[in-house]
Amino acid sequence: MEKEKWLLDRFYEHVSDNKRDKFDAIVQNRTRYVTVVLENLFQPHNAAAVLRSCDCFGVQDVHIIENDNVFVPNREIDMGASKWLNLHRYNTEPNNTLPCLASLKEKGYKIVATTPHTNDCLIEDLPLDQPIALLFGTEAKGLTKEALEYADAYVKLPMYGFTESYNISVSVALALFNLTERMRKDETIPWQLPELENINLRLEWAKKVVKHSKKVEKILTERFELLPK
Amino acid sequence: MEKEKWLLDRFYEHVSDNKRDKFDAIVQNRTRYVTVVLENLFQPHNAAAVLRSCDCFGVQDVHIIENDNVFVPNREIDMGASKWLNLHRYNTEPNNTLPCLASLKEKGYKIVATTPHTNDCLIEDLPLDQPIALLFGTEAKGLTKEALEYADAYVKLPMYGFTESYNISVSVALALFNLTERMRKDETIPWQLPELENINLRLEWAKKVVKHSKKVEKILTERFELLPK
Repeated sequence: MEKEKWLLDRFYEHVSDNKRDKFDAIVQNRTRYVTVVLENLFQPHNAAAVLRSCDCFGVQDVHIIENDNVFVPNREIDMGASKWLNLHRYNTEPNNTLPCLASLKEKGYKIVATTPHTNDCLIEDLPLDQPIALLFGTEAKGLTKEALEYADAYVKLPMYGFTESYNISVSVALALFNLTERMRKDETIPWQLPELENINLRLEWAKKVVKHSKKVEKILTERFELLPK
Repeated sequence: MEKEKWLLDRFYEHVSDNKRDKFDAIVQNRTRYVTVVLENLFQPHNAAAVLRSCDCFGVQDVHIIENDNVFVPNREIDMGASKWLNLHRYNTEPNNTLPCLASLKEKGYKIVATTPHTNDCLIEDLPLDQPIALLFGTEAKGLTKEALEYADAYVKLPMYGFTESYNISVSVALALFNLTERMRKDETIPWQLPELENINLRLEWAKKVVKHSKKVEKILTERFELLPK
């Protein structure tokens, strides 16, 4: 990680103090322990509100399955949140649900479907002993059969009224609120980014605010190779 | 309350078992201990998502201040939630903020502004020793100066990212999630509806599903007056 750290330091020379402080503070609260998977979301204002909530809760990765719908967040509502997140899109196969979920499972995530139609477990009772990929379905129909079948667990949100579900962007936020607050308060959970990811993420952010960052990176990389080792 | 109970029983004769069971169950979770005040909300999908959340969390009253914007929830997103809530609109004065808040304060509510711009108190630390009217402002600008000045307390939601606020319908849901869950778990809080309100609310609901309910009520009221006391 010596190279990454060196690159970050060089890039930081071109970033304002204010921004640097922000990056350094915010990265401490970033997590990949909880991640969000959106299957076929289509309303731009919902997509945007979800990204905004993920950024607010420090959830860095959002996985976007585009089987039928292309995910286009509304820029006005997202408030620039997507700029600071890693959006992973799955849209090359006829059905992208299983490839997405399988790759997350392989990375150690427990696949947790949010659905009001099971009585399995309230969100507040979901154990946090394993990284969690929270799965949300499309506005009208919820998750597909494939997604529901592949899930390792099912959670629901508390609900006391006539309406049988929350708005989708509300569901995501409520679930993240409960999980991430519990996660942050539990000192036994390794929810923070490992050092290399921490450095790389700040490097990514720095590149977004430094002009001609690709060119700068190329020059810096060449300089690094010439450094006495 | 003898008359109300008698009326409810008569109306219930025209309501299906299924609906009656639903009304009887849902009313047990209804509350006026927490109420929501929306100042100048204008996006129909936000308005609708807020009403849906209020119904889901069992919050019966929503107070709507319409100074500049007329509140028109999107029927598709609201999923019929507004039918089961009491919406109180304030729109007859040039400025309706103070009349609304003053009437709530008179009823014993603590006026609590939600704003990311104070460091006063996290939502989870807000004491629940008094009924709470949670105040939310318009999408772009937040609460007006009048509303902020009139408030008894300020709360904020946890926030760890670049974005400095949640989408408005998300904010309402997160705040209600925290407050109502704490409220329901605290046996010292008198959050349930008093008996007369409980009966009257079910009567209101029953009227919504009984045909020609105004005519039916008139006839029933006349019958009640003739009953031997």
